Amino acid sequence: MFNNFKERNLTLLTDFYELTMAGGYFENGMSEQIAYFDMFYRKNPDNSGFAIMAGVEQMIEYLTNLKFTEEDIEFLRSKKMFSEKFLQYIKNFKFTCDVWAVPEGTPIFPGEPIVTVRGPLIEAQFVETMILLSINHQSLIATKANRICRAADGRAVMEFGSRRAQGYDGAIYGARAAYIGGCAGTACTICDRDYDIPALGTMAHSWIQSFDSELEAFTAYAKAYPQNCTLLVDTYNTLKSGIPNAIKVFNDVIVKEGFRPRGIRIDSGDITYLSKKARKMLNDAGFEDCKICASNSLDEYIIRDMLMQGAKVDIFGVGERLITSYSSPVFGGVYKLVALENDGRMSPKIKVSENVGKITTPCFKHFYRLFDKESNKAIADVLTLRDEVIDENKPYEIFDPQNTWKRKTITDFYAKDMQVKYIEKGRLIEVLPTMSEIKEYASDQIDTLWDEVVRFENPHTYYVDLSQKLWDVKNCLINQAKI
Amino acid sequence: MFNNFKERNLTLLTDFYELTMAGGYFENGMSEQIAYFDMFYRKNPDNSGFAIMAGVEQMIEYLTNLKFTEEDIEFLRSKKMFSEKFLQYIKNFKFTCDVWAVPEGTPIFPGEPIVTVRGPLIEAQFVETMILLSINHQSLIATKANRICRAADGRAVMEFGSRRAQGYDGAIYGARAAYIGGCAGTACTICDRDYDIPALGTMAHSWIQSFDSELEAFTAYAKAYPQNCTLLVDTYNTLKSGIPNAIKVFNDVIVKEGFRPRGIRIDSGDITYLSKKARKMLNDAGFEDCKICASNSLDEYIIRDMLMQGAKVDIFGVGERLITSYSSPVFGGVYKLVALENDGRMSPKIKVSENVGKITTPCFKHFYRLFDKESNKAIADVLTLRDEVIDENKPYEIFDPQNTWKRKTITDFYAKDMQVKYIEKGRLIEVLPTMSEIKEYASDQIDTLWDEVVRFENPHTYYVDLSQKLWDVKNCLINQAKI
Repeated sequence: MFNNFKERNLTLLTDFYELTMAGGYFENGMSEQIAYFDMFYRKNPDNSGFAIMAGVEQMIEYLTNLKFTEEDIEFLRSKKMFSEKFLQYIKNFKFTCDVWAVPEGTPIFPGEPIVTVRGPLIEAQFVETMILLSINHQSLIATKANRICRAADGRAVMEFGSRRAQGYDGAIYGARAAYIGGCAGTACTICDRDYDIPALGTMAHSWIQSFDSELEAFTAYAKAYPQNCTLLVDTYNTLKSGIPNAIKVFNDVIVKEGFRPRGIRIDSGDITYLSKKARKMLNDAGFEDCKICASNSLDEYIIRDMLMQGAKVDIFGVGERLITSYSSPVFGGVYKLVALENDGRMSPKIKVSENVGKITTPCFKHFYRLFDKESNKAIADVLTLRDEVIDENKPYEIFDPQNTWKRKTITDFYAKDMQVKYIEKGRLIEVLPTMSEIKEYASDQIDTLWDEVVRFENPHTYYVDLSQKLWDVKNCLINQAKI
Repeated sequence: MFNNFKERNLTLLTDFYELTMAGGYFENGMSEQIAYFDMFYRKNPDNSGFAIMAGVEQMIEYLTNLKFTEEDIEFLRSKKMFSEKFLQYIKNFKFTCDVWAVPEGTPIFPGEPIVTVRGPLIEAQFVETMILLSINHQSLIATKANRICRAADGRAVMEFGSRRAQGYDGAIYGARAAYIGGCAGTACTICDRDYDIPALGTMAHSWIQSFDSELEAFTAYAKAYPQNCTLLVDTYNTLKSGIPNAIKVFNDVIVKEGFRPRGIRIDSGDITYLSKKARKMLNDAGFEDCKICASNSLDEYIIRDMLMQGAKVDIFGVGERLITSYSSPVFGGVYKLVALENDGRMSPKIKVSENVGKITTPCFKHFYRLFDKESNKAIADVLTLRDEVIDENKPYEIFDPQNTWKRKTITDFYAKDMQVKYIEKGRLIEVLPTMSEIKEYASDQIDTLWDEVVRFENPHTYYVDLSQKLWDVKNCLINQAKI
């Protein structure tokens, strides 16, 4: 685990209202008030049937290293809004909450508590911005990457978008999330150093232009990297010049030195057409093992179309449309107060709204996923009160929380608690998985979803239901809130 | 100037091919080859008539602090692709290039050299990813922010999007760019500490929910911040509860303590309708000076519509649609080799493409903007060979580089060199402007554009022309490149 937040102080990367509220709670003697917050989201990006959880590791790094420096205190003092008593409190601030989260790589659905924080109100409130920022960003990119990888249907997808990312972390953590979503690697070198995500790359057009001819440029590169030689063939004319020159250099340099060429890359033109021609030319020259890599404004729809038309591409390099989730660039997670605790007694909290979809689900909850015992497919998710246990040996009735007459009884299932307690009293208590473990887990978990949930267009809306008891509490609070 | 890159090592935030190319140039004895690269872009985001340059300060910080650490070298060695000689070279790597850029806040147009780098090929090539990443990201957000600010028509726009940004830097440098684009401030506290961008904020709905009643919550906040009291009025019912309670607390706490209330914030519902009602209620209570702040998925089109319908909003809080440039989330800047220099002799370079718009403009150039002497309005931009001087005392003929029969003779103009040389032999040679200077400069420069260029829909395509000499070189190279 690469811990960026030991050195990097992002404590003040927070909405200013987190500080005014903290100050307000402090001045009102509410420092010790215990509160519960849930993070959840309302809509899958790209109208997907699900999203993929990511960013938990960075969230944890932030939370377990959280402190205010002298510089931070000085800045806050300069705002002339906070009392010296509060600044003293902030100076000694420690994050002492408990934090549960859904593990990275898990398929998630709207309305589910993907992060839950329990602890002193000031602390649990203060971390809102960074929890949302960490999870929103990486879940967005992991979800998009998975769509693109599914379109590639088993072929490798490489993340190539650093230069078009929204900021440096957009590039770095975006590549990390893309790997969780299924990408085989990235062009972003720092992700290889820090997260063991394979970084690959070959050459830009400027390499070719720096030599007097394409053949010279290819020869020079092949001599420098005979074991790792992929050549960019579209600088002048892909079919008339690029591929013939590549084949010549593969024979004259690579094979002569006892290696096999890695591949060619096509970055412009009609890639479907060019890739078919290129495949034939390479095969005819005895380079059936030479891979064809394609890039150029790709996304899941273009890749699917290319493959439907028989494109002979082995590796897709995907840039700006992945790293920014171009067609749906926001993951709308929110962080809401769900309960207060006074002397051990829970007081559930709800935020009502005229928009039914914006009403929150109160209470400290359990979040279960029910799987079919035989197929191991996910049937439905159920949120319950914290003390409820789902008896796997009895039929369990689920119902749609909006249209309660839609009911279904489930048998032969097992229930999995989807949240892991990562942080207890401010300290990490779990061993975090490696990147390749997360990637594999994501792939396995997506396999538990029915095809109807996974498809791109009009996916089936996966059930996220409430237990009868939780539903009762929620509706009771809604009725009380009416003014 | 807050220098983030002294402490933060982002050297390996680079596409891996920059390293393979560097290694290749090194092995081929091309370390000393002098090269010229231009950064330019091809299309304005959101079909705007122009974009706004931003991110120069961060680009400079990166370039002037660039070095490889032992850890970086170790990582590169582990890839087993690079020779020890090259790793030794990398260990002693220093950035010694010259760098010109268009100052932050300048309106820019497609095809213009907004950054030019001259120096040893390896160095000038290596910095591609970070130059593009820095300028692409911040120019994107500055451009979007300016659209939103123009829609707000003089009213304040606050950047509220940290939680939905694409990564931590997306939030921080996004807020910085939003300020350049015209935002009055941000919710992102760290930007206040590091960039003097005013951070403001009040309370979340959870503040209200943490008290037994809205009135209690308002009272507690007003007592904590009597000088800075803005109240969030939509938790329960804006008109029946929120505003009446706010007015009560303004009278009972704020006015009683000798202050004036700052404002109210409305975050849901029909804001146009609610703001008109709210304005009347506040005015009737004697709080004409109390500002109304509105937030909730705003962008330039929604703000324009709201104002057309008479919304009484003084401050717009804009979140996810600004910080991600939601409707157009990529700024497509590219970085291309334009010339090589051998023994002082220039060899211009071009990248041809079947797509006319993708053909690059060769040569080390000058980038001039011609202004009308009387109105001070920008008439056209002209790119010339580096040694060309535009004589302001003679009529100057400009022509469309694609449709060369479209010609226009300009008189009574002055020409401004748009690039500033910031870095000479790797060292910063200019004093960088403060954030408020950049913001003011941006506003002044946008005022030099005709309304036809500035409007949202179907803006006039501003002229970006080539001098006859540069056009001749370009066309000569295009003809030579034909295969």
